[in-house]
This record gives sequence, structure tokens and C-alpha cells, in this order.
Amino acid sequence: MRRILLGMILCCAAMPALTAEEDIVLRGMGSFHVGGRVAEVSGKAVRMIVRQPGGPQTKLDPNGQYMVEQMYVQYFLPRQRKGKLPLLMWHGGGLTGVTYESTPDGREGWLNLFVRKGWDVYVSDAVERGRAGFAPPDVWTSEPTFLTYADPFERFRIGDGEGSWNPDPAKRKVLSGSQFPVEAYDNYMKQSVPRWLSTDDAIIAAYVALVDKVCPCVLLLHSQGGAFGFKVAEQRPDKVKAIVAVESATAGNLDKAAALKDTPVLMLFGDYVDQHPRWANFKKIDLAYADAVRAGGGTVDVINLPDLGIKGNSHMLMQDKNNAEIADVIQKWLAGKGLVE
Amino acid sequence: MRRILLGMILCCAAMPALTAEEDIVLRGMGSFHVGGRVAEVSGKAVRMIVRQPGGPQTKLDPNGQYMVEQMYVQYFLPRQRKGKLPLLMWHGGGLTGVTYESTPDGREGWLNLFVRKGWDVYVSDAVERGRAGFAPPDVWTSEPTFLTYADPFERFRIGDGEGSWNPDPAKRKVLSGSQFPVEAYDNYMKQSVPRWLSTDDAIIAAYVALVDKVCPCVLLLHSQGGAFGFKVAEQRPDKVKAIVAVESATAGNLDKAAALKDTPVLMLFGDYVDQHPRWANFKKIDLAYADAVRAGGGTVDVINLPDLGIKGNSHMLMQDKNNAEIADVIQKWLAGKGLVE
Repeated sequence: MRRILLGMILCCAAMPALTAEEDIVLRGMGSFHVGGRVAEVSGKAVRMIVRQPGGPQTKLDPNGQYMVEQMYVQYFLPRQRKGKLPLLMWHGGGLTGVTYESTPDGREGWLNLFVRKGWDVYVSDAVERGRAGFAPPDVWTSEPTFLTYADPFERFRIGDGEGSWNPDPAKRKVLSGSQFPVEAYDNYMKQSVPRWLSTDDAIIAAYVALVDKVCPCVLLLHSQGGAFGFKVAEQRPDKVKAIVAVESATAGNLDKAAALKDTPVLMLFGDYVDQHPRWANFKKIDLAYADAVRAGGGTVDVINLPDLGIKGNSHMLMQDKNNAEIADVIQKWLAGKGLVE
Repeated sequence: MRRILLGMILCCAAMPALTAEEDIVLRGMGSFHVGGRVAEVSGKAVRMIVRQPGGPQTKLDPNGQYMVEQMYVQYFLPRQRKGKLPLLMWHGGGLTGVTYESTPDGREGWLNLFVRKGWDVYVSDAVERGRAGFAPPDVWTSEPTFLTYADPFERFRIGDGEGSWNPDPAKRKVLSGSQFPVEAYDNYMKQSVPRWLSTDDAIIAAYVALVDKVCPCVLLLHSQGGAFGFKVAEQRPDKVKAIVAVESATAGNLDKAAALKDTPVLMLFGDYVDQHPRWANFKKIDLAYADAVRAGGGTVDVINLPDLGIKGNSHMLMQDKNNAEIADVIQKWLAGKGLVE
């Protein structure tokens, strides 16, 4: 008896410090860049620039080789792993991986919530966005585009369509029952980054390089990231084991959809979609792609959140006030596909 | 006796799972943007663009309000906190907070190492860099500049000065005894982002907003981040309780240096500095600022790593192969200033 007791005391003494229930315990975290190519610029004039205020004049020769079209990835690996595969979170247009981090009003985003559910999560910035960097104008000849303050408010089903924005917060017409943290719209706009309209091939190439590096995996796609994700999955159907497409803004190639016959897909939609011509149109494109996947022998589940009684969701579902509830809907679907231990 | 044993069994059963020695245990992690302003653009023509391949033509009206000049911050809060204040890591020119994450060759960077030492770490992307985004050309009228593949190799004391770069890795002249993971130079170049030369005031304003939000704190500055950090500290000497300036590329304002009389400073330099005119010049500027701080009643410690027998360090010390050893030098200095529990 005493020996058992002593054993337990020693066992307890040797233990690392206790962790509180709400702690995030990681067996690793880090980041890397992937993809990219070396581009050559030649024939441009050399000029002198001051790189630091007070610093010396230094030569800037724009000719030479540049590293371009790489992408950025940050990963978090929970100690108690329950998701059977890495979960890759890809953002939408004019945005970065910040989409999945803390919400504009400071709550935990899907990165934290899915790490807490035991998934190895990889959050990335696509080519041209955020920490991926962007190429010199000699390499990409198109110009970046920028969103006005009003644009996402009116387009992303936060406000009630065109004309709903007003610089005066009191005069903005927010959709009735909206779950978006509209009081933090300023912070949402701070997450917005410029985008190019000519870089799709480079973006897809880098995503394929990412999949080759860290998959087999599950893709969690949002908006424009859906269009990229389905096309990447068509190229690597053996490595993409499931897809969660959150309001995919267009989908893959109809004539290649059959490649996804062994890749179960969840298409998830928020509220107000059918009343909003832009989103109704994207949904129509998504559902046509779903039909093409099914015709090729694959399975696609479609969840309209309002059908589950989950109402008020904007296009930024992962930032809406009920983002944890939607994460649970996704987790349940993943578990149903046998992807959770 | 049985009651004690039962109590211990219950206690053990109620415990969260054990954490391995090498785990990172966080009481929280997240991100936010801070600073910024709303800028107005007017008088520009409306145009139609396709935002997604296959998507509809949509109106792009460049006129309106834009959120500009915010910055991005990600934080990691260890459960076993030992650093008495938040530790803010500010990157150098043409770079982002990625500087402090995994090294180009995949080892742990100073973010992980200082979180493991028990510091609340805040890694940020300055205005215009990475996830901070950048402003439309109607707001910032200067153009971004880009570094060639050769530039940091020759400038950052990886290669042996001008002409040391060669597209063929076998023909590159690496500095003798270099600690930089030169085999991963491709990955280092992928971390490089464009920079503007006209945004210093905006960058400083956002850093001041960050300090106002999360400090009192310790600043860990690198290269161009040093020039910003000292100027921010001059504006908020009550909130910046210590500064570690790693190869600061120029420093603060000599006539305001006395503001730092109660803010101890460590200036840290790597190897090959005195033989390299560019870095010898920056060091001279830094040491003149150190003298001005001391003349105002403050304290500045200067560490030349080679004097401690630590040799071969490039300008990217936090990524060099001995980055953990240098982190220990910094930690020791911080402990000496009473900033470690």
C-alpha cells in the first residue's frame, strides 16, 4: 500500500506543470514559404535611393533575379491530435490567412477553434497576399486592385446590398439579424489587402506545391479560395482527402470534377444567399459543380445553415458571432467522414 | 489512508492530459490590427472588372474611403509566464514578422525560443509590410521597391560583400565561418517583401498605437526596426521599459535621446561589422545615439558578439545557426535588468 502511494507521489512530482483547461498545448508551431520561381528582369536603369532616413545613398539596380510567386504558411500542431489529417485553411479574395485568426471583435477564430478540436492547422497567405509578398511591376504587368471601405460591407452580406453603406455608423443599413460583428467593421477593413486579377495560375501552382509538401490533408476553403481549392484538388485528388467549401466563389472545372470521386465535399452556405444575386449566382455555379462531381461518382453534401435554424450569417461566417457553432457543424461533418479519431 | 489515496486518484483523474517537455503551452494566442486611418480618394473613373475567373463583370469604383496605414500583430502568451512584460519583436526593412518565426532552414526562431523562455511575445508586420497591407497609389504616391536575389546576400553579411553573389550556389562567396543557413537562402528570399521609402511617419504612428495598446513592454528591434523603435520610445518613454536593438540600422533622434533616461538599452552586433563599410557606418550612428542616451542619464550596454567568442553572425542573427545562443545572451541581459521572474 505504501509502495503504491509512494509511486503515485513520485509520478505526480515528475509531471510537468499542470495546464489549465483552456490552454492550447502545441507539440509544435512554425512557418514556411513554399512554391515560387526565380524571375529575371533586365534592361532597366540603375538609380540611387536612401533606404533609411539618415542613412547613406545606396545603389538600386532593378535588373537581376527576383524570387516571386511563393506563398506563406503558418502551422499549429496540437499535442492531443484528433483530426486524422492536416487541415489547410485557405482564405478568400482581397484577404489573407488572418481571416481565420482572431475575429475583428477579438474572439477566437477557426484557427484556434480547430486547433482546440485537435486538428493540425495550416493557415496560409496565397501568392501576392500578405506575407507571401508580391512581384515587381516588371514581372506582373497588371496593377493591384483595392477595396473601398463600403465595398465588402455591401457585397459580403453585412449591409443590405448596394447603398447600405454610410460613413456614419448610425446610418448603415445592416441586414436584419446579422451575425457579423458590425461594431468592429473598422478592424475587418484593416485585414483587407490589395489583390491582382492576373495571378490565378501562379496562386494555383503555389497551392499545388503546398499540397505536395504537407498532404494528404483536408482543405477548408473560403470564397475565392474555393475556386482555387477545387482546381488544386482536381490536380491532386490522391492527396486531398476531403474538402469543406465555405461559400465557394465559383468552383472547379466541370470537365475535371470527376477527379474528386474519392474526395468527399461539403458545401456550406450562410444566410441571405438566395436574395442576393451575386451570391445566388455563385451558389448556382457551385451546385452545378457538385452535380458534376456526383456524376463522376463522388459525394457532395450541401448545407444551407438557415435550414439547420442557424440564421444571420454573412459571407465572413468564420468571423460571425456564431462562428463556434458553425465550426461544430463542420466538425460533425468531418467526423461523419471518419476523419476524427 | 484510504481517503488520501482516493483523493490522489481523483486528483489525478481530473488532471488534463500530460504535456511533454518540449510542448508549447499557451494561455492564449491571437492577432489584431492596430492604427490606421480612413483616406479619401475622389475624381477617378469607374471601371468594370472580373473578380473571379468565370465570375460576373462587376463595377470597380476606385473613389471612396480606404482604410490605410494599419499594422498587423500576432501574439502568443505562455502559461508559465516568466518575462515580466510583453516582448514586442519588430522586423527590419523589406521584411515582416516572419523574420522571427521558423528560420529559413526550418529551425525554431526567436518567437518560439522566447515563448519557451516564458515571454508574452508580440510579432508584428509594420505598415505596408505583409499582413498590414498597403495603400492605393492614389494615397501613397511613391512606388514600392524590390530587392533582387543578390542584394541581401551581398548587403547582409552572408556573402563577402559586393560581387559575392552568383546564381550558381557553388560559385557564391560566403563569408568565412558564416553562421547563416546559406543552403536555405532561397527560403530566406521568399520572406522578402516590397517596401516603400515614403512611409516612415505612418509606420511610426502605427507603432505608437501598438505601444499604447499593449505596453508597458520590452522592444526587441532589428535593423530598420531599430530606427523606428528608438523614435517610438522617445515618444513613449514611460511605456517602453527596455530596448534590445539588434544591429539597429540608424537609431533615434540625438536631440530626443535623453527621453530614454529610464529605459535601459542593449545594442547587439554580429560579426564582420567593422570590415563592412555599410554596417560600420550604421554602428557608428548607433553608438553616437548611445552616447546621447548616456549623456541624458540613461544606460546603454553594447555587445559585440565576437567579443564574447560568438563568431560568424550575419545581419540576420535571429536566423543564424547559433540563434539560440544569441537568444540566451539577450535573455541574460533582460534578467540582469530585473525583467525576468
